[in-house]
Amino acid sequence: MSEKFVYDFEEGSADMKFVLGGKGANLAEMTNLGVPVPPGFIVSIKACNDYYKDGQNKISEEIEKEYLGHLKKLEEKMGKTLGDEKDPLLVSVRSGAAISMPGMMDTVLNLGLNDKSVLGLTEKTSNERFAYDAYRRFIQMFGNVVMNIEGSEFEELLSEEKKARGAEQDTDLTADDLKELVEKYKALVKEKKGMDFPQDPLAQLKMGIEAVFGSWNNDRANLYRKLNHVPKEINGTAVNVQSMVYGNKGETSGTGVCFSRNPSTGENKFYGEYLMNAQGEDVVAGVRTPKEIETLENQNKEAYDELVSIKNNLEKHYKDMQDMEFTIEEGKLYMLQTRNGKRTAAAAVRIASEMVEEGLLDEKGALLKVDANQLDQLLHKQLDPEAKKQATVLAKGLPASPGGAVGKCCFDAKEAHDRAENGEKVILIRVETSPEDLIGMNAAQGILTARGGMTSHAAVVARGMGKCCVAGCHEVSIDEKAKTMTVSGKTFGENDFVTLDGATGEVIEGEVGVTDPELSGSFATIMEWADKYRKLLVKTNADTPHDSEVAIKFGAEGIGLCRTEHMFFEESRIKAVREMIVAKDLEGRKAALDKIEPFQQKDFEELFKIMGDRPVIIRLLDPPLHEFLPKEEEDIKGVASEIGVSADELKGIIASLHEFNPMLGFRGCRLGVKYPEINAMQARAIFKAAQSVPGCKPWIEVPLAGHVREYKMIKDIILQTAKELDVGDKVDYKIGSMIEVPRAAMTADEFAADCDFMSFGTNDLTQMGCGFSRDDAGSFLDQYVDKGIYDRDPFQSIDQQGIGKLMQYAVDLAKKANPDIHIGICGEHGGDPASVEFCHKIGLHEVSCSPFRVPIARLAAAHAAIKDDK
Amino acid sequence: MSEKFVYDFEEGSADMKFVLGGKGANLAEMTNLGVPVPPGFIVSIKACNDYYKDGQNKISEEIEKEYLGHLKKLEEKMGKTLGDEKDPLLVSVRSGAAISMPGMMDTVLNLGLNDKSVLGLTEKTSNERFAYDAYRRFIQMFGNVVMNIEGSEFEELLSEEKKARGAEQDTDLTADDLKELVEKYKALVKEKKGMDFPQDPLAQLKMGIEAVFGSWNNDRANLYRKLNHVPKEINGTAVNVQSMVYGNKGETSGTGVCFSRNPSTGENKFYGEYLMNAQGEDVVAGVRTPKEIETLENQNKEAYDELVSIKNNLEKHYKDMQDMEFTIEEGKLYMLQTRNGKRTAAAAVRIASEMVEEGLLDEKGALLKVDANQLDQLLHKQLDPEAKKQATVLAKGLPASPGGAVGKCCFDAKEAHDRAENGEKVILIRVETSPEDLIGMNAAQGILTARGGMTSHAAVVARGMGKCCVAGCHEVSIDEKAKTMTVSGKTFGENDFVTLDGATGEVIEGEVGVTDPELSGSFATIMEWADKYRKLLVKTNADTPHDSEVAIKFGAEGIGLCRTEHMFFEESRIKAVREMIVAKDLEGRKAALDKIEPFQQKDFEELFKIMGDRPVIIRLLDPPLHEFLPKEEEDIKGVASEIGVSADELKGIIASLHEFNPMLGFRGCRLGVKYPEINAMQARAIFKAAQSVPGCKPWIEVPLAGHVREYKMIKDIILQTAKELDVGDKVDYKIGSMIEVPRAAMTADEFAADCDFMSFGTNDLTQMGCGFSRDDAGSFLDQYVDKGIYDRDPFQSIDQQGIGKLMQYAVDLAKKANPDIHIGICGEHGGDPASVEFCHKIGLHEVSCSPFRVPIARLAAAHAAIKDDK
Repeated sequence: MSEKFVYDFEEGSADMKFVLGGKGANLAEMTNLGVPVPPGFIVSIKACNDYYKDGQNKISEEIEKEYLGHLKKLEEKMGKTLGDEKDPLLVSVRSGAAISMPGMMDTVLNLGLNDKSVLGLTEKTSNERFAYDAYRRFIQMFGNVVMNIEGSEFEELLSEEKKARGAEQDTDLTADDLKELVEKYKALVKEKKGMDFPQDPLAQLKMGIEAVFGSWNNDRANLYRKLNHVPKEINGTAVNVQSMVYGNKGETSGTGVCFSRNPSTGENKFYGEYLMNAQGEDVVAGVRTPKEIETLENQNKEAYDELVSIKNNLEKHYKDMQDMEFTIEEGKLYMLQTRNGKRTAAAAVRIASEMVEEGLLDEKGALLKVDANQLDQLLHKQLDPEAKKQATVLAKGLPASPGGAVGKCCFDAKEAHDRAENGEKVILIRVETSPEDLIGMNAAQGILTARGGMTSHAAVVARGMGKCCVAGCHEVSIDEKAKTMTVSGKTFGENDFVTLDGATGEVIEGEVGVTDPELSGSFATIMEWADKYRKLLVKTNADTPHDSEVAIKFGAEGIGLCRTEHMFFEESRIKAVREMIVAKDLEGRKAALDKIEPFQQKDFEELFKIMGDRPVIIRLLDPPLHEFLPKEEEDIKGVASEIGVSADELKGIIASLHEFNPMLGFRGCRLGVKYPEINAMQARAIFKAAQSVPGCKPWIEVPLAGHVREYKMIKDIILQTAKELDVGDKVDYKIGSMIEVPRAAMTADEFAADCDFMSFGTNDLTQMGCGFSRDDAGSFLDQYVDKGIYDRDPFQSIDQQGIGKLMQYAVDLAKKANPDIHIGICGEHGGDPASVEFCHKIGLHEVSCSPFRVPIARLAAAHAAIKDDK
Repeated sequence: MSEKFVYDFEEGSADMKFVLGGKGANLAEMTNLGVPVPPGFIVSIKACNDYYKDGQNKISEEIEKEYLGHLKKLEEKMGKTLGDEKDPLLVSVRSGAAISMPGMMDTVLNLGLNDKSVLGLTEKTSNERFAYDAYRRFIQMFGNVVMNIEGSEFEELLSEEKKARGAEQDTDLTADDLKELVEKYKALVKEKKGMDFPQDPLAQLKMGIEAVFGSWNNDRANLYRKLNHVPKEINGTAVNVQSMVYGNKGETSGTGVCFSRNPSTGENKFYGEYLMNAQGEDVVAGVRTPKEIETLENQNKEAYDELVSIKNNLEKHYKDMQDMEFTIEEGKLYMLQTRNGKRTAAAAVRIASEMVEEGLLDEKGALLKVDANQLDQLLHKQLDPEAKKQATVLAKGLPASPGGAVGKCCFDAKEAHDRAENGEKVILIRVETSPEDLIGMNAAQGILTARGGMTSHAAVVARGMGKCCVAGCHEVSIDEKAKTMTVSGKTFGENDFVTLDGATGEVIEGEVGVTDPELSGSFATIMEWADKYRKLLVKTNADTPHDSEVAIKFGAEGIGLCRTEHMFFEESRIKAVREMIVAKDLEGRKAALDKIEPFQQKDFEELFKIMGDRPVIIRLLDPPLHEFLPKEEEDIKGVASEIGVSADELKGIIASLHEFNPMLGFRGCRLGVKYPEINAMQARAIFKAAQSVPGCKPWIEVPLAGHVREYKMIKDIILQTAKELDVGDKVDYKIGSMIEVPRAAMTADEFAADCDFMSFGTNDLTQMGCGFSRDDAGSFLDQYVDKGIYDRDPFQSIDQQGIGKLMQYAVDLAKKANPDIHIGICGEHGGDPASVEFCHKIGLHEVSCSPFRVPIARLAAAHAAIKDDK
C-alpha cells in the first residue's frame, strides 16, 4: 500500500496531531465524538513535507489525485459540487501544525466562489447581498494570501466604495455596491498580477493548499517558532479543507470563541465572546467589541445549551480546559475548533488544582498541565497595592493578561525593540496589534491596546508570553503617527511613564511601585505535589543573606552555589584584596589575607545561620585577579595611593595580569595552585564559621579544575587547614569539585574517586565545550539560533546533543567510580525547565538556580520524574 | 611469604630494572654472565618507595634487618667484616633508578672506614698513605653527601694543608699530612653538625642508604626528570652496596670509562678513556685529562684484552652499544657498570643501520634503537663549510657533541637561562660544568668548557640534549668572575659572538653562517625502513611553496594543513582584505573579495604544482577579522586613508570587532556562517586552481565547527560553488572538518557521516578542552608541569589521559558512523614522537607536522607500528 497523505475527518483522531496537525486532529476527534462539525478532510503534514522535499515547493500529482478523491467524497456527502453554479459547495482552507501557532499561518474562506457559483449561492440563499459579500471577501482574502497582493489595496477600494455610497459600515453596502466592488477587485488582481482572478475552483483549491504550505515558512511563523523554541522536529503544517458555514447570514447567525474555564484567572466558569451576523475573523481581529458568552442564552437558548453541553463533554474528554470556536448558521450550532486553551500561570495553577478536586485529574496529571516556564509570571513582582491607592487611574480596559508593568510610552513595535535593547523599559501602545507587532510585544514590559477583546491578538499573545496586557481600552485615543496617547484629557509622549495593571485592566499615570507575589492557595498546593513526586533536590545560587532568605521562601533545599568572590568586592574588604594582589611575596599576601579572613568568616556565619541544616556549597575564589583592580586612569591613581604603591607600579601589575583570553586564563583553582594561601584563608574562614554555627553543613567546592591533580592539590590545602583547626568530625563538611572544564568531564571517574560531590558548571562547560565566549558570542550566536544551527541558545537551555552528551558521559563515569558521589548542576541552566528535565534524565541528584526560579525548577523536576515513571 | 626488598647481585637480572634500578640490574646481569664484578647487593626501589611511604622518610626495621642479612652474606663471601680493624670490608653506596640519571643522585665511596678500620686497611694494604687518603676522601664525601656540609669547606682545608706542606698535587701529601687532614675534617664535622663523625660502620651504612633515597628528591634530580619528561611512574631509586675496588692503589691500578662504539659518530671502534692511579670520579669530573683507551694495551695487555672481550660479549648480549665503567686494582680488571650508551643522533642512526648489516639486529629492532626525538639534531642546520673557510679558528677542543652553534658569550648558567628567556642566543662557557649548570646548558645554543674529556659532565649531558658542545679546550682561559674568555691573545666579553663546531671541536671567532643537514647514508636507510613499517601517513603543515618543497625533501606525503590566512596577510592583498572587512554590505564585501580571488587562485596553483598528486588539505579562513586590522593610532590613520574610510570610522569598526576572548569568538567557520561569500570566494579560487593543475588533490577543510550543522552550512557553500564552476568529477576533491572544538569531538559521529575526512586540531582542542589559553597559560602552566599536575606541557605533547581520551572517543564514534572516514591530526603535536605514537594507537590515518619534523614523525610512526605488532 502506498503512503496515505489525505484523511477525512472520520479517519482521524486527537492523537494524530503529528500527521493531521492540532486543528485537524481535534476536528477529527470531535467528528467521531458526534459533535456537530462541518464535514471536511485534511491534507496531512506528510504532504507538506513532500511539498518541500528537495526544495521543489510543489504538490505531487499523486497527492493532488488523493485530495481530489476526498473532495469527491465530501461533495457527495454534502450533495453539492465545488463551484457549482446552482448550489455550490464552498470550503475553508486552513493551516494547522502539530503545535498551535495562532494567527501565524494563512487561511482562505469561501473558496469555490467564482462568477458563476456566486449566482448559485445567490439562488440557494436567496440573498444576493450575502453572496456577493462572500465573493468579495473571498477575492480579497485569496488575492492577499494566495496571490500576495497587499491587503491595503483591497481595503482602499472598499473604503472608496463606502465613501462613494455614503456607507458608514461594510454592512451598509448593497448587493449592487458589492457587485461593483467585486469587479474592481478583479481588475486590481488583473492589474497587479497580469492574470484574471482564477475561476476554476480546483485551481483555487490547489493554489490555496500551496499557499498554506508556503505560509509555514513565512517570517512571522519563523519568528514565532524561534520565540517559542519550537523544536526542528515540528516541521510543516497540515491543510484543513472544510465545508463552509456562515455566521454572517443575518441576525440568526453568529460566531464566537469560548473557553471552558476562565483562561486568565482559572475560575471554573464558562467564558467567551461572540458576535451575531459576523464571520469568525471579526471576533479575533477585535474590529467590533464582542458580547459575553452568557448573553447567548437570551439570543438562542437551544444553541447555547448545546454549546454548554459540548464544552462540558469536551473538557471531560480532553481532561483539560478547552479553547473552542463555533459558528451558528441560521440558528444551527457548528463547532469549528477545539484545543487545550492557553492560559495564564495563575489560571494554569488554579485549573490544575481544581481539576484534581473535581476528580478530573490525579495529582501527577495536574502537575503536567502546568508549564514550568510559565510559572515565572507568578513569581515576579506585582503592582504594590498601597502605592496604587495613591496613583491616578487614567482609564480601564480589559484585564487581558495579569501582572504589573511600568514603562515609557512607545507607539511602534520596532522602536519598542530598539529602546528595550538600549535598556529602556517601555509599554507598547497600539490601536490594535497584529503579528507584525510580535517583536515589540516581546521587548515591552507590557502592552496596551485601544481596540480588541479578551481573545484579540494582543491578549492571546501577551498571555502566552506571560506579559501584562490591557486590551480594548476605548477611552484611550492613540495617534501612532504623532507618537502620543491622549486619555483623561492628558497627552502622553514617548518620554512619559505609564503603569498597567493586567489583573484589573487599569491604565495608571506615572510609575507605580511593585511588590512580591502571593505564593499561597493553588500555587502552594501545586508546589506541594511537585515536591512529592520530584526526585531532584532543588537548591539555589545565593551569596547574600537576602537572596538566601528569598530562596528558602521559594522552597530551596540548600545553597548549590555560593560565589565567594562577591564577598571580596565589598567596600570593606576590596582594599585588603588589592593589597594581597600587589603583595611582592608570601608574607605580604598573608598579611593582606589576614585582614580579609574575619570578614569571610562573618559572611559564612550569616549564611550558615540562615540555612540551618541545609547544605551550603561554597565555591572557592574563582575570577581572574585583574577583576579586582581598577581600569580607569583616575581610579588607578586613587587605588594606588590607598594601598600604598605608586600608580606606575600598580599599572605594571595590572598590565602583568592582562590576558588575551581571561576566560581561559589564570583563575579558578589555578589561583590556589600558585597561591595556596588564598584557599587556605578561605578554608579557615569556612571552618571557623562552621565551628560557631552548630549543625551547619558546608560543602567546599574547587572551581575550574581540569585535571584531578589540581583538585587534589586544593583538597590537600583544605584538609591541612581542617587539621590545623582541629576540625575533626565536629563539622559535617564535604569537599568536591566543579565540573566545568571539558577535560574534567572526560575524566570524571578520576575526580569522583576523590570527591564527595561534583557540580556541573554548565555556563563554563558550554563556553569551553562549544568554543563560545559568552561575552563575545553576541556577534554571531543570534544568527546561529536564527539559522537553526542550535535549536536554542545553548547558554539558556543545555545543548543536550553536545554539552549534555558530555555531561551524561561524565555522570556515567563518575557513578561507576564512586556510587556514593552526589552530582548537581549550578549555573543558569539550573532554572530552565528543559535543562532540569535533562538533569533528571541523566541521573543528577540536584539542581541549583537563582532564588526566583526555584519553584520553576521544583515543578520541572516533578515533570521529569512523572514522565520518567510513565 | 613477605615481600622481598633486598637482592644479591646473583639474584637479579637485566630485566628487573624497575625493581633494581638500571645500574643494579646490569650489575646482576654481568655477575650472572660471569663478568668480573665486585660482589654486592641491591636495596631495591620498592624499599625506596617504602622509605617515602606516608611522608615518613624512614627505613623500616624490616628492611634494615633484610639488608643487614645481605651484608652478612657479603662479608662471608669476601671474608671481611665491614669496618673491621684488621681487614675491613669497604663498600660503595650508589644510587640507581630505573632510568639513567647520570650525576643527579648521590654516591658514597669507601664506606666502612673509621678510626679503627683505617688501621686495618693500612695493615692489609701495607700502604698507610693510601689508607688515610681513602679515609679523608670518605669523610669528605660522607660529610658532604650524607651530612650536608658544603664540599668547599673540605676543599678549603685540603688547600690549606697542601699550601702548608708546599704540595702541588693531592698526591704530594704524605700519610702524616693526610692523618692531620683527617683530624681537621673530623673537627669540621663536629663544628658544623655538633656531633662526632659517625664511627659505627652500620650507622654509616644506614645513613648512606637514607642519603641516596633522599637524593631522589633533590632539586637537580627533579629538574633532570622534568627536562627529560620522566614519567611519574618511574618513581624512586635503588641503592647498590658493592664491595670497593681501588683504581688508585698505585701505577698498576687505574679506572676508566669506555663505549663499545664511538658514541659521537657511531663508528664501530672501541672508544674510551682511563686514568691510572685514580678513582672513578676523577675521570668523569674531568679534573685530569684522561688517556685514550687503546693505550691501555701498552699499560696492561692482559687487562686490555679482557676488557675488549667483555665489551664484545656485552654488546652481543645486549644487542646495543654499551657504556661501561671499569677499575683495575693492582692489575686485576673489575667491571663496575654497563648500560646502553647515550649517543648522538648521527651515532644512533649509524649504529642501528650497521648492526643490521652485522646481523646483530633486524630492521625493526634497529629502528627502535633510534630515538625519534633525538633525530631533530640531524635535521637542523650545520655550520656552513664555505663560511667556515673564511672564519678565524681561535682554538680547538674535544668534539664532544656535534652540530653548529652561534651565540654571545655567557659565563654563568643562571644568566644563560635569563638571557635566553629574553630571546638572546648565548654560548655557555665554563671551566668545567656540574649538575648545577644544567639550567644554563639547556638554555644555551652550545657549550664550551676548558677542562674535561669526552665523557665529562658537559660532554655527556650535551649529547643527551642534542646540543653542540666543545669540551676540554685548554687553550681557552676563562675568568668566570670577570666574565671574560681569553684565547689566541683576544679577550671576549658578554657581548662578543663566538661560533662552535661540535663536529670538529673548533672554537671560531664571531658569527658563522649555517647550512642544511645531509640526509643520505645511514639516515636514508633508517628512513627507508621506517617507511616500510609505519602505518600512519606523514604530511606537513605548509602554506608556502618553499615550505612545501622542503617538506617533500623530508618525505612529506602531502600537506595536512595549509592555513589560508597567511596568504591574506601578504602585502599585495591585505588592502583588499581590509576593504572587505570595512564593507557596509554584501556588494562591498563581494567587490573586495573579487580582488583577492585571483591571488588566492595563484597561491593554490603554485602549491598544487609542487605537491603533484599528493593531497593538499586547505583550511578555510580561520582567524578573527580584527587580526587583519591595524592596532596603533598611526597605522590606523594610514590604513584608513588607503582604503578610503575615515580614521574614526575605522576605529569604530576595530572597536566593534574587539573581543574579550577572541580565542572563543567570531572566527573559523563562524565567519562563513555570517559571511558565506568569503568561503565561496575561497572555494572558487581552489576549484579554479585545481582545474588548471591536472591530477591535484585539494581537500577542503572547515575550521572550528562545533555543531555538524555549521559544517554542513559551509559544505553546502563549497558544493554550490563547485556546481557553479561545473567542477563535476573533473577535480578529485574532498570536503572535511577540523575537529578542534570539544563539542565536535563529542559528536564526531554526526560529523563523520557528512565528512570525507576529519583532522584533529589538537592545539585548539587542548586550549578548549583543558581551558587554557595558550597566549596566557605562561603565567601558570610552568608551575603546572613543575608541580606534576601535567606530566608534560599539554601543548607540546598530547595530554593522553584527557584530550587524548576525548580524541579516542571521537575516533571510535566517527569510524562507527563512517568506516571510510579518513582521520588525521595537524597542529604541533603532529611532530612530537609520543603524540605520533598515540595517534597510531587510537587509529588515526595520518599526522601532519612542520616540514623539519617530518622525518621524526616518520620514525615515530614506525616505532608505533612495530610496538603495536609485538
